[in-house]
Amino acid sequence: MLERARTLDAGDPLAGYRERFDLPEGVIYLDGNSLGALPKATPKRLAEVARDEWGEGLIRSWNSADWIDLPHRVGAKIAPLIGAAAHEVIASDSTSVNLFKLIAAALALRPGRKTILSEPGNFPTDLYMIEGLERQGLAQRRLATRDAMADAIDEDVALLMLTHVHYKTGAIFDMAALTTAAHAKGALVLWDLSHSGGALPVDLNSCNADFAVGCGYKYLNGGPGAPAYLFVAEHLQQAVEQPLTGWMGHAAPFAFSDDYTAAPGIGRMLCGTPPILGLSALEVGVDLIAEIGIERLYAKSQRLSEFFRQCLSELGIELELVSPTDPTRRGSQLSFRHPEAYAICQALIARGVIGDFRDPDILRFGFAPAYLRFEDMAEAARHLSEVLVSGEWQRAKFRERAAVT
Amino acid sequence: MLERARTLDAGDPLAGYRERFDLPEGVIYLDGNSLGALPKATPKRLAEVARDEWGEGLIRSWNSADWIDLPHRVGAKIAPLIGAAAHEVIASDSTSVNLFKLIAAALALRPGRKTILSEPGNFPTDLYMIEGLERQGLAQRRLATRDAMADAIDEDVALLMLTHVHYKTGAIFDMAALTTAAHAKGALVLWDLSHSGGALPVDLNSCNADFAVGCGYKYLNGGPGAPAYLFVAEHLQQAVEQPLTGWMGHAAPFAFSDDYTAAPGIGRMLCGTPPILGLSALEVGVDLIAEIGIERLYAKSQRLSEFFRQCLSELGIELELVSPTDPTRRGSQLSFRHPEAYAICQALIARGVIGDFRDPDILRFGFAPAYLRFEDMAEAARHLSEVLVSGEWQRAKFRERAAVT
Repeated sequence: MLERARTLDAGDPLAGYRERFDLPEGVIYLDGNSLGALPKATPKRLAEVARDEWGEGLIRSWNSADWIDLPHRVGAKIAPLIGAAAHEVIASDSTSVNLFKLIAAALALRPGRKTILSEPGNFPTDLYMIEGLERQGLAQRRLATRDAMADAIDEDVALLMLTHVHYKTGAIFDMAALTTAAHAKGALVLWDLSHSGGALPVDLNSCNADFAVGCGYKYLNGGPGAPAYLFVAEHLQQAVEQPLTGWMGHAAPFAFSDDYTAAPGIGRMLCGTPPILGLSALEVGVDLIAEIGIERLYAKSQRLSEFFRQCLSELGIELELVSPTDPTRRGSQLSFRHPEAYAICQALIARGVIGDFRDPDILRFGFAPAYLRFEDMAEAARHLSEVLVSGEWQRAKFRERAAVT
Repeated sequence: MLERARTLDAGDPLAGYRERFDLPEGVIYLDGNSLGALPKATPKRLAEVARDEWGEGLIRSWNSADWIDLPHRVGAKIAPLIGAAAHEVIASDSTSVNLFKLIAAALALRPGRKTILSEPGNFPTDLYMIEGLERQGLAQRRLATRDAMADAIDEDVALLMLTHVHYKTGAIFDMAALTTAAHAKGALVLWDLSHSGGALPVDLNSCNADFAVGCGYKYLNGGPGAPAYLFVAEHLQQAVEQPLTGWMGHAAPFAFSDDYTAAPGIGRMLCGTPPILGLSALEVGVDLIAEIGIERLYAKSQRLSEFFRQCLSELGIELELVSPTDPTRRGSQLSFRHPEAYAICQALIARGVIGDFRDPDILRFGFAPAYLRFEDMAEAARHLSEVLVSGEWQRAKFRERAAVT
């Protein structure tokens, strides 16, 4: 099995990119969908930004280092990964804050409609951000299960808001079909690409998507709490209004006028002063993913996860797969259900295999194709098998829950 | 003049702290109130966070490096600088986003009242964030000049929202008196401390302030676009609700529940995943300012600006001062009005004296006491005098306006 893995690695056109990441010794990292690994170029870039741009350039770097354009520049680099034009994407704030902007924008574009439709079990912050507007009396949250989603879209729905690749199961929504169904009822559509961007090709414009948001610190390797990004389709950019009307979204921020005039284009989605350190680190991660190429990443991601399943099967491990079995219908991850998922996850971490536990009973393995080897798949499968067979997860130290997992 | 300056520097108890900053050669930096200088310890800390915490620790660092607590930890360190208790301050998002949270929170706490009172010419983003809630139909902006402020507070006012030290003039509002006046009419009060925090002592709790926000990248030296901070008085923390209800403000974010339950205490003011690189850099800046001590900084700040004025006077330079002449009534800056302020500012920058131009006719000099010398005051005054006397600002290259200044 290990030999076969090494043969696959030898023939892997992306194998050399692993060297571009700084990965700890003795660790098999299957959690790049929670926090992506560190590109080797990032610390050097951060030192340059701190020493040269901030330290030496000081305030002048807003012009001379073009800090003022950084949200646009990083957005434009993300755009081709998600099927958008360069001027339709901007990097800013957090995914949660960007969700708020776009939910509010949809409500303003669809006066008389208050319903925001999503699914139960969507990533929590997506559901919570709808609640925020509900507290303001502006929105009404409606949740429908996947099967019932198309039927739940009616003329009350201002916005259909879904996560393209489910964080827990990896299941992919049919972006084109659901966007069409929502438009047929006059609703707008927002796709959360947090588990898609950088892992699989997304084609927002082919699907006629209206809005999207996504995360900078997962498959884009932007670092912990990296800035997020958002997309507004070109044809909506003149009409769109959002309530976080900070000075960086103003048409002329340095005129210091008392009254707000929205910037033309995607710039009006900005709010406060852009976080230069975070954006600079994110840019390195995005550049690297763009260099490798999203089609090649997706092809390898499918091969990795299928090989992992095959290894488990050869080791006689049967776990309930909650991800779709068809690799074209899931993101870059496999999730399994086990009543002792937490303890198993902890036992694996103790062996240097870092996966993820998701409450209450999900064991989640992410396969970031930019830096994982087939050898990692074989070794992770072996460790998982040994943990399960030995029952070592039953030891007290693995069962004790930490505050954060 | 220069000799006198050097004598003053020799007797300055804070003189040694200049060495803790990485300042460019040949520059006199009078814009630390726009972007603070780089602490020498910051690049090293950023490298540690990137290489050790992110690269080596990966997802585990949310626990092992206590990333999850970082917004609280940095907030607790800012608290004593602004007269707050440790659990009343949290570092997060941008100043603009934090303004939105707190304006909305005030509206929710004062049902039936919609007016948000501020002053014309307040820092633009403060006024714009009120407009955002106005667009949502939730707020009404009312602006009153300083003289008329106390009279403009009535029973319609949900929130009085002012910037403690004016960004343009440096004038200080009487925090205690205006807070008392607002409370007398049942209004809440929000103080923007962007030009106060780290420059002069603020005593939020003695003044019974309800809310405050502040900037991380000015006198706190957190770096370009550093995370901001916000304050909620303890007695309001159980009642306060804000609409940016992201997962990091949830009582149990890792339970992944579909429904939002606000965290107890200041944690409910968080929204998305905290920006670890930015917060880590900010922490270095805050630690340094706290080590120097806010009372000593303020004392030196007043001496610096008074010495600068004295130098100008001795050089026979008469400029219209728009800042208060009494140093106890202004922040750590001096602003002058001149019809050619822009060109003069550019000519000074060409000489290595970095001040700030503020539309339409303000020449602003900030005196960050942590790293400026009396010698810098004497030299800056000499350069300003030479620029004015020689008329070199009249050259075309200085008059051409860049996009950002």
